[in-house]
Amino acid sequence: MKRTLRYGMVGGGQNAFIGAVHRMAANLDGQIQLVAGAFSSDPENSRSTGEQLFLDPRRVYPSFEAMAKAEAALPAGERIDFVSIVTPNFLHAPVATTFLKAGFHVVCDKPMTLTLKEARALRDTVRKSGKVFALTHNYTGYPMVKEARELVRTGRLGRILKVVAEYPQGWLLDRIEAEGQKQAAWRADPKKAGASCCVGDIGTHAENLGRYITGLHIEELCAEFTSFLPGRKLEDDANLLLRYRGGAKGVLHCSQISCGEENNLNIRVYGTKGALAWQQEHPNELKFVPKGEPAQILRRGNGYVSAAAKKSTRLPFGHPEAFIEAFANIYLEAVAAIRARSAGRKSAFDFPTVDDGVEGMAFIETAVKSARSNGKWTRFPKL
Amino acid sequence: MKRTLRYGMVGGGQNAFIGAVHRMAANLDGQIQLVAGAFSSDPENSRSTGEQLFLDPRRVYPSFEAMAKAEAALPAGERIDFVSIVTPNFLHAPVATTFLKAGFHVVCDKPMTLTLKEARALRDTVRKSGKVFALTHNYTGYPMVKEARELVRTGRLGRILKVVAEYPQGWLLDRIEAEGQKQAAWRADPKKAGASCCVGDIGTHAENLGRYITGLHIEELCAEFTSFLPGRKLEDDANLLLRYRGGAKGVLHCSQISCGEENNLNIRVYGTKGALAWQQEHPNELKFVPKGEPAQILRRGNGYVSAAAKKSTRLPFGHPEAFIEAFANIYLEAVAAIRARSAGRKSAFDFPTVDDGVEGMAFIETAVKSARSNGKWTRFPKL
Amino acid sequence: MKRTLRYGMVGGGQNAFIGAVHRMAANLDGQIQLVAGAFSSDPENSRSTGEQLFLDPRRVYPSFEAMAKAEAALPAGERIDFVSIVTPNFLHAPVATTFLKAGFHVVCDKPMTLTLKEARALRDTVRKSGKVFALTHNYTGYPMVKEARELVRTGRLGRILKVVAEYPQGWLLDRIEAEGQKQAAWRADPKKAGASCCVGDIGTHAENLGRYITGLHIEELCAEFTSFLPGRKLEDDANLLLRYRGGAKGVLHCSQISCGEENNLNIRVYGTKGALAWQQEHPNELKFVPKGEPAQILRRGNGYVSAAAKKSTRLPFGHPEAFIEAFANIYLEAVAAIRARSAGRKSAFDFPTVDDGVEGMAFIETAVKSARSNGKWTRFPKL
Amino acid sequence: MKRTLRYGMVGGGQNAFIGAVHRMAANLDGQIQLVAGAFSSDPENSRSTGEQLFLDPRRVYPSFEAMAKAEAALPAGERIDFVSIVTPNFLHAPVATTFLKAGFHVVCDKPMTLTLKEARALRDTVRKSGKVFALTHNYTGYPMVKEARELVRTGRLGRILKVVAEYPQGWLLDRIEAEGQKQAAWRADPKKAGASCCVGDIGTHAENLGRYITGLHIEELCAEFTSFLPGRKLEDDANLLLRYRGGAKGVLHCSQISCGEENNLNIRVYGTKGALAWQQEHPNELKFVPKGEPAQILRRGNGYVSAAAKKSTRLPFGHPEAFIEAFANIYLEAVAAIRARSAGRKSAFDFPTVDDGVEGMAFIETAVKSARSNGKWTRFPKL
Repeated sequence: MKRTLRYGMVGGGQNAFIGAVHRMAANLDGQIQLVAGAFSSDPENSRSTGEQLFLDPRRVYPSFEAMAKAEAALPAGERIDFVSIVTPNFLHAPVATTFLKAGFHVVCDKPMTLTLKEARALRDTVRKSGKVFALTHNYTGYPMVKEARELVRTGRLGRILKVVAEYPQGWLLDRIEAEGQKQAAWRADPKKAGASCCVGDIGTHAENLGRYITGLHIEELCAEFTSFLPGRKLEDDANLLLRYRGGAKGVLHCSQISCGEENNLNIRVYGTKGALAWQQEHPNELKFVPKGEPAQILRRGNGYVSAAAKKSTRLPFGHPEAFIEAFANIYLEAVAAIRARSAGRKSAFDFPTVDDGVEGMAFIETAVKSARSNGKWTRFPKL
Repeated sequence: MKRTLRYGMVGGGQNAFIGAVHRMAANLDGQIQLVAGAFSSDPENSRSTGEQLFLDPRRVYPSFEAMAKAEAALPAGERIDFVSIVTPNFLHAPVATTFLKAGFHVVCDKPMTLTLKEARALRDTVRKSGKVFALTHNYTGYPMVKEARELVRTGRLGRILKVVAEYPQGWLLDRIEAEGQKQAAWRADPKKAGASCCVGDIGTHAENLGRYITGLHIEELCAEFTSFLPGRKLEDDANLLLRYRGGAKGVLHCSQISCGEENNLNIRVYGTKGALAWQQEHPNELKFVPKGEPAQILRRGNGYVSAAAKKSTRLPFGHPEAFIEAFANIYLEAVAAIRARSAGRKSAFDFPTVDDGVEGMAFIETAVKSARSNGKWTRFPKL
Repeated sequence: MKRTLRYGMVGGGQNAFIGAVHRMAANLDGQIQLVAGAFSSDPENSRSTGEQLFLDPRRVYPSFEAMAKAEAALPAGERIDFVSIVTPNFLHAPVATTFLKAGFHVVCDKPMTLTLKEARALRDTVRKSGKVFALTHNYTGYPMVKEARELVRTGRLGRILKVVAEYPQGWLLDRIEAEGQKQAAWRADPKKAGASCCVGDIGTHAENLGRYITGLHIEELCAEFTSFLPGRKLEDDANLLLRYRGGAKGVLHCSQISCGEENNLNIRVYGTKGALAWQQEHPNELKFVPKGEPAQILRRGNGYVSAAAKKSTRLPFGHPEAFIEAFANIYLEAVAAIRARSAGRKSAFDFPTVDDGVEGMAFIETAVKSARSNGKWTRFPKL
Repeated sequence: MKRTLRYGMVGGGQNAFIGAVHRMAANLDGQIQLVAGAFSSDPENSRSTGEQLFLDPRRVYPSFEAMAKAEAALPAGERIDFVSIVTPNFLHAPVATTFLKAGFHVVCDKPMTLTLKEARALRDTVRKSGKVFALTHNYTGYPMVKEARELVRTGRLGRILKVVAEYPQGWLLDRIEAEGQKQAAWRADPKKAGASCCVGDIGTHAENLGRYITGLHIEELCAEFTSFLPGRKLEDDANLLLRYRGGAKGVLHCSQISCGEENNLNIRVYGTKGALAWQQEHPNELKFVPKGEPAQILRRGNGYVSAAAKKSTRLPFGHPEAFIEAFANIYLEAVAAIRARSAGRKSAFDFPTVDDGVEGMAFIETAVKSARSNGKWTRFPKL
């Protein structure tokens, strides 16, 4: 398949945020081309978005159903190879299911679905389809996150004892969802976002990041949800204590009302032989402290980092990479998987899958359950 | 009283840590002079410590009881003005009580006592004695901690919503208490340290710091204690969720097994109008973020800091102050209080009192109670 | 012109560095499409590079001359709109001149030419051509560099007194140019790089950055060049003192043998009313210290930054942008200028021009002259 | 000599800065006792300062000559062991000479004298006297500066190629010397400060620090002095290029008009095998980058630091030490030398000597000479 892959997008019309990010990430490496879209439930928004993106108007659709049908009817050499789903949460499952059944690979934003039940059903659909399904837990695309995972995998930290994961933001310190800010409006609406706002939107990234780096799975948790702003239906702040399978302990807190915080996802992992720390807002550095030795600042692009970190890097050391490049790494891996699948090759790829999506939904639902029982320790369900 | 004050020390013999800190803090400003001591339960250790400190051998005592008695018998112009208690926890209450009853002012290390009950009894003794009692929660002596308190007091943060206080250390990642390390040995021994190791030794500093800065009191908490090292009787790691009176929420975690962490006490306070962050290992800076504005890095010694911060500062900006100077600020305030008390003046001073000690013991006991009930949310007792 | 622009590339074959960066920068925003190239003086390298980039083999050329001729002969709706020149320095002028004369706009890497004389000649050619010429002094594409310029422009720093610009790297601490490392080989070869290695390659970025932010022009300089590695013909380290027109003073030092340094371009500007500091390796932050007030950390994407910084930003605060995005900003502005020029519109755009290239070459030549006269203070020539 | 040493102070009256620092540094370790002083040329200032310091009024003198005479006449068991000189520069030599000739050891602030000639004469006096003479280049007292020196000494950096030393301050951005600010007034007055303000006051610290860490001596330099404020007689900003004996190169710049800078002395040293960086405002950390490896953050108090760093440390890791403690290390070493000298022992001690003072004065004079010749490269004189 010596050609760029073609994709279509569902969601991502004007005033959306994450759709534009997906497009830049997809553009970056010249491997993928946007050729179709159903960018909004508002057909005029969809149309004008398509025009701004220089798309053929015939492939700018008024609905995702129309798009799936029409694209499937195009000749193989023209139709999209995959779809990117960048809608509010409640549409993830229906759109993904529609396109999988129409024979397309899927890249989907997180959290995967509205409920755990829906997530399990989507897992079944993916398995039956034989198609690639990638979930954009984009923070695992950072090279130094991959380096962190390698440190754990290769035993440099010894046995993990404690994990502290934080994701503070401050952008919902005012009730902007009531003032028509689109991003806020759907996230604060249980019908569109699900049973959680803060944990569903960002806490799930912290959980996923911790799991990606350490390989640990949560066994029990205790959650304290707060909705600090009057009239807000879902929590805008959450503090959790975690017990991992095998005995490690964790603290995970996230917030959308922490004044001055921008997008400060960060993690510290403490083991018997070493510790590591990483901050999303300074993604090119990873702190590693071998027991009894000076802290080391590992930096992206150097000869001493692992093959996994090198593979996901585009620039030499000191030429910083950031959010879009990490996001693009998810796309690159998904695209490589699609190319392999199309060629009948079986290979391992490094992107979040439908199984990660199921575990993420289990995390959200368990946290909600604990919070609703006044912070009772609550066990994870079977996945 | 145009003279230096004279003091004696109980504890602080060779191989002790905190005694030497107290002496340096007391020396720094030339206001106080060490003239007596019962430095160890081992008389030879006491004697040789006294010798190294150039003390008159007649005022180096084999026991604190002997010291209290002998010093009380000296003429007013010779005897100590106050005693500094720097022993393991279990001796704080008996030594303090003895010296208060013998008519001396007291400076005492934290945590104040072994139990809350003992703390309340000591409070009664202090009140009856009319003497000054200062508890060395030394971290509140830092100028930029005082600045943080002023920011809260003057409304710059608005209403406080969330407090995150951390105190990770890593020095007990090996079981050094079993290898004769004195500092570790008594802290890990319930008879000498009380019902908690990690929370009693350092978590209590984090609680005190949060209370000092925000003025908030804990109403309920949920605590997860872990003893990661086999054979260790008390917890070496603790994670807590907090509910403050009035609705603010908190996360407090402390650890002695977090590899690579040295003495990383730090706090973040988020309010409706602003946020602040302070780290003990970089004590000359305080981050303040007014809502919607750039973060400000406030630095000790500048014209723009509050009177409270200025008062507790010795050096111009850029000439860093640190741990000993902060510790010395507790001494300076206690000494000023002693001078005022002796002169019959009533003034307000800024040092931790016996009431802080009682609230600290309540914190420790409530945390222990919650942890022992598998992390059940537990209410604070009446103080 | 409701379509993506088409461009061709000269240079940027396999094992090149900057060509790939240009392509990612050009890809990012979906405004530009690579359709042609003469990627290497080695036709096989050019061919296979074109194949990897999914290009039509007919538009992958064995030489830049062939490309200019063939593209000019294509119909308007097919031929390239502009060329990107990413070759070693000695080819910049001939390639640019060829394409300008063939009627194409030009994006060219820096330093602009081999000599100041050549730079002046190219300036004439550009002026006569009526075409857009953009020089990729990419570091001025960073939003917080634009913010820095706005701080100066709007008087927040008062009168500028002192500028300290540094650009330390360490990658030439071994003589890798003798071991076949392509990037090093041409940079260390006077025939391909010109009369300077370190100043020409990176010092010129520091000079350009200082000028972009402050608007100051150098009047005299004193330069100390060192070639620390035996056998190296050009300097690998340079330290300069600067006198600006109007009385400000400067220090500029750059190095390719500073162990541990990656790509640490940074600048501090001190004025009578305020100061600023920016580091390329942490590009989303800008430190600003108003006189007598706390330092402020301005961060990209916030409401409080200038329109200029906002315009060049793609992501919300806390979602870091980096090198490629800054580079892409140069392309976006150049593309906007090309669209405007094609539409007959006159507008101001924010990208480095041929005049910047001339001043950069004057800087390099003056530094070389001073260094060769044992560090004598040397005046800038007329541009 | 099992007793505290007794010292007297010349200078350091009210409104002085450095005198109080010397006293706190001397107090800290309980090894030294202040018993006498001639604190000011104003006898009333001297008297009241002595009173505040709880001194016996009979040992508070109206002049340093009176003090030297009277103290020398006291019995051996009463008179001072040494004098601390904390006056403006022009008095250093006369006071030191007087006390040395009266048989006292001397601790003296820097720069050592007004002129190089005076420095050489003082060196002769010291040598003849057989007394200890310590110069308070206090920044070399920091443990992590000693660690830096050990890294160089033990070859961890290989051959040194480049040194960048900076000392920016901003406190003279207004002409406060004309408004009666005492610290500024004498520093800006050539009669009291000597031929240089900025280099004499702080540049000399940067030179000394570089020499202490690297062992390198300057062979030639080129200096650009500026007096940015109208009416100021001496320079308030200086930029220098350095050539060291043996081929290393250096950049040294210092400033008193760099807005927002407090006391930001810092140094970077680049060698063939590694590099180091240290900042005075964050003194507990030292960055070390072995070639090709991650940067290491060495922190005071850890087991992995050198014996030299350990010896000069009072607190465990994570309990920060700072300016006063470093200053006190100079005193501790001087006191140890005095004790050894008194006991007839010969040992090596680690404090700045009269030879350091001579080299420092040579640096100042060479810089002045170069600056006055429009920045001509100028050779160091024979010391």
